[in-house]
Amino acid sequence: MKKGLLIINTGNGKGKTTAALGMAMRAAGHGMRICIIQFIKGDWPYGELTSIKKLADTIEIHVMGRGCTWLSDDIEKDKAAALDAWDFAQNILADESYDLVVLDEFTFLLKYDIVAIQPVLAVLARRPPTQHVVITGRSAPEALVAAADLVTEMVPIKHPYDIGIKAQQGVEF
Amino acid sequence: MKKGLLIINTGNGKGKTTAALGMAMRAAGHGMRICIIQFIKGDWPYGELTSIKKLADTIEIHVMGRGCTWLSDDIEKDKAAALDAWDFAQNILADESYDLVVLDEFTFLLKYDIVAIQPVLAVLARRPPTQHVVITGRSAPEALVAAADLVTEMVPIKHPYDIGIKAQQGVEF
Repeated sequence: MKKGLLIINTGNGKGKTTAALGMAMRAAGHGMRICIIQFIKGDWPYGELTSIKKLADTIEIHVMGRGCTWLSDDIEKDKAAALDAWDFAQNILADESYDLVVLDEFTFLLKYDIVAIQPVLAVLARRPPTQHVVITGRSAPEALVAAADLVTEMVPIKHPYDIGIKAQQGVEF
Repeated sequence: MKKGLLIINTGNGKGKTTAALGMAMRAAGHGMRICIIQFIKGDWPYGELTSIKKLADTIEIHVMGRGCTWLSDDIEKDKAAALDAWDFAQNILADESYDLVVLDEFTFLLKYDIVAIQPVLAVLARRPPTQHVVITGRSAPEALVAAADLVTEMVPIKHPYDIGIKAQQGVEF
């Protein structure tokens, strides 16, 4: 049996987006066509963008989000930007020329009721049968986990902030 | 405070190596010099190698391992190959021209007593102060976790093997 997988990287630990990027890199090596859509702007670092540009013949990236909602000065603008990103994503999820679609930090749209889970599940179910989708973000809802083929929870065991070390360029951003 | 981090990606879930690769990609975007040493050959797919070659001006990769120990026909050859890889790694861990060193699947050397934890910790402690190290693999021992700055456990919540879907090229290998 061969089919496109729905993959969820969730949990409070590091590595959800980074693992999705590594997967995109792996897929690019196989000549697959990849679309990465970033729903929260703040999480995406300069380093990734530069590296992805070097692989740009098969990977495209769309920075759609506005920033972290919980830091926002204008929730309505955030919601509108997130909805625009989801509209854009739905087109990609209907386009069989894309082999792998990464919906980075998408779970926050569900968490904050910007989109409802049922239409999201319907779009995912209707996608081309061999198209892989990776969704990242904290607190993946149960219904999304139930629909997924592969779910990994990143659990923080120890974090350098705990011991007073600031974020390091090139490693954490 | 700025220093090289010792980062551990452990647990039984997917994404330990993939997250390390994503981190290498990120670091490459910052122009950092990266060395990836693979202690188990079997886990490394064609896709990654091809992608990494495209970033080869700052990332180098060394495939040192022989394969999965638990499938091996010759444990002594596996141990010798792993020890060679560790000898090689020690030189990199003493070379300040490397900004990020990935020791992929290194924990199996500790698990099977191929190297002892104390000399490993000593080598890690002696490394250049701004050099980041990422160690991946299951069952990271407690002393390694204690020495690390950032530890994430990848926990499998759901795996496609569970529901009869075979591994997919470009996504899992």
